[in-house]
Amino acid sequence: MWRASVLTLFPEMFPGPLGVSLAGKALAAKVWSLDAIDIRAHATDRHRTVDDTPAGGGPGMVMKADVLAKALDAIPNDDRPRLLMSPRGRPLTQGRVQDLARGPGAVILCGRFEGVDERLIEARKLEEVSLGDFVLSGGEVAALALLDACVRLIPGVMGKEASAAEESFSHGLLEYPQYTRPPVFEGLAIPEVLTSGDHARVEKWRQAEAERLTKERRPDLWAAYQARKNPEKGR
Amino acid sequence: MWRASVLTLFPEMFPGPLGVSLAGKALAAKVWSLDAIDIRAHATDRHRTVDDTPAGGGPGMVMKADVLAKALDAIPNDDRPRLLMSPRGRPLTQGRVQDLARGPGAVILCGRFEGVDERLIEARKLEEVSLGDFVLSGGEVAALALLDACVRLIPGVMGKEASAAEESFSHGLLEYPQYTRPPVFEGLAIPEVLTSGDHARVEKWRQAEAERLTKERRPDLWAAYQARKNPEKGR
Repeated sequence: MWRASVLTLFPEMFPGPLGVSLAGKALAAKVWSLDAIDIRAHATDRHRTVDDTPAGGGPGMVMKADVLAKALDAIPNDDRPRLLMSPRGRPLTQGRVQDLARGPGAVILCGRFEGVDERLIEARKLEEVSLGDFVLSGGEVAALALLDACVRLIPGVMGKEASAAEESFSHGLLEYPQYTRPPVFEGLAIPEVLTSGDHARVEKWRQAEAERLTKERRPDLWAAYQARKNPEKGR
Repeated sequence: MWRASVLTLFPEMFPGPLGVSLAGKALAAKVWSLDAIDIRAHATDRHRTVDDTPAGGGPGMVMKADVLAKALDAIPNDDRPRLLMSPRGRPLTQGRVQDLARGPGAVILCGRFEGVDERLIEARKLEEVSLGDFVLSGGEVAALALLDACVRLIPGVMGKEASAAEESFSHGLLEYPQYTRPPVFEGLAIPEVLTSGDHARVEKWRQAEAERLTKERRPDLWAAYQARKNPEKGR
C-alpha cells in the first residue's frame, strides 16, 4: 500500500478532494492511505505555539524547527522520501511524480509561505518541492496536487487512461487537440482526417499538432524535445 | 466581491480546503464567493452524458462541446476571464495571479486529463492555464490551487504578510532562508548576522542568500533576473 503522511496545521483539509472520485475510491479500497498529522499536537508549551517571529526581523511568522522535528520524528522510521512543499523548491515534474508513485509513499510537510526554520530542512534533509512560480497561502493545496498526481499512477487506480496520458506527456510534447461528437458544433466540424478511418494519417496529424502547440506555447519544452531528438546538434 | 464560478463533474470537491483557514473566513465574510456548477446538470440525454470517445480513436474520453457550452452559457454574461485548467495551457505565474486577483473574479472549467473538445475552447475563447509539467486526475485540484493563490491577494484576506511574500517573489528571486527561536537547534545556531541587530547587514545577507539559492536551484529564474537587472547585456 502506497502511504502518504501529511504534516499540517489544517488536518481538516485532508483528504478533501482526494476523498472523491477515483482517488477516493482507491483510498476506501486501501490501495493507498492518507494520514493527516496535526503539527500543533506536537507543540510543547501550553499555548501550543508552532511559529515565531523571523530572526533578523521582517513580516510574518516562521515555523519552529523544534516543533516540526518532534512531529516528523513521531512518524515511524521508514524509507519514504520527506518533502517540504515550498515555492523555493525545485518545480515538480511528471518524472518526479513517476518516481514517487513507484516508491513506498511520501511524508509531506506543508509549509506556510513565510517559511520553515532552515535548520529543520537541513537537519531532516527535506526535499523542497514547488508546484510552480506562484505563491499559495500554505503547502496544503500543493500537497493535494502532488498526491493527486501520484495516486493516479498507482497500479489499479486509473487503468489504461492514465498510462496513455502519461505516455503523451513523457514524450515531452503538449497533447494534441481532441474532438468528439457532435460532428458539427456551432458550425465547426471535426477535422476531416480524424473521421477518415486512416490510422496512419491520424497519427501523423496528431504528432504534427502536438509539435505545433508545443512550439507555439512552450518554447522551453520544444527546445528540450529537439535536444533529445537530435542530441548531436545540442552539443 | 471577487466571484469564482467553477464548472466541474465533482462539485462536492468545493470549497474543500478553501472553506478552511483565511480563505474560508473570507468566504464566510463574503469577501469572495464560490459557485460550484455541476456540468452533468447541463447534459441533455437521459443518461446525463458529458463525454464521448475521441474522434480518430485512442484511449479515454473527451468532454463534449455542446454540454460544456450549455453549462458556460448559463452563467450570467459578465467580464470575468474564462479559464480552462489543462496541462496544455501556459504555466501559471504570480504575475497572472496578481492580474486575476485585481479583476472581478474568474470562471474556471475543470477539464479531465483526456481533454475537452477543441471547438469549445475556440468558440468560447477559453484561456488554458497549467499548474506545471505534471498530470493531475482532473482540473479540480488545479482550480483549488489557482483560487488559493488569487484569494490570498484580495485586499483584507491576508494583510501585510501576503504583500511581503508577494514582493519577495515578484523580485524574481527565491526567498532567503528563515530562522526563528530557539537560538540553537540540534547544535545548529541561527546565523550571527540575523541576531546582530544591524539591519543593513541583515538586508545584505538576505539578498546574497536569495541570489545564491536562485542561482543554485533555478538557473532559469536567475537568467531572467540578470536580464532584467542588466537589460543592455541581454541584447
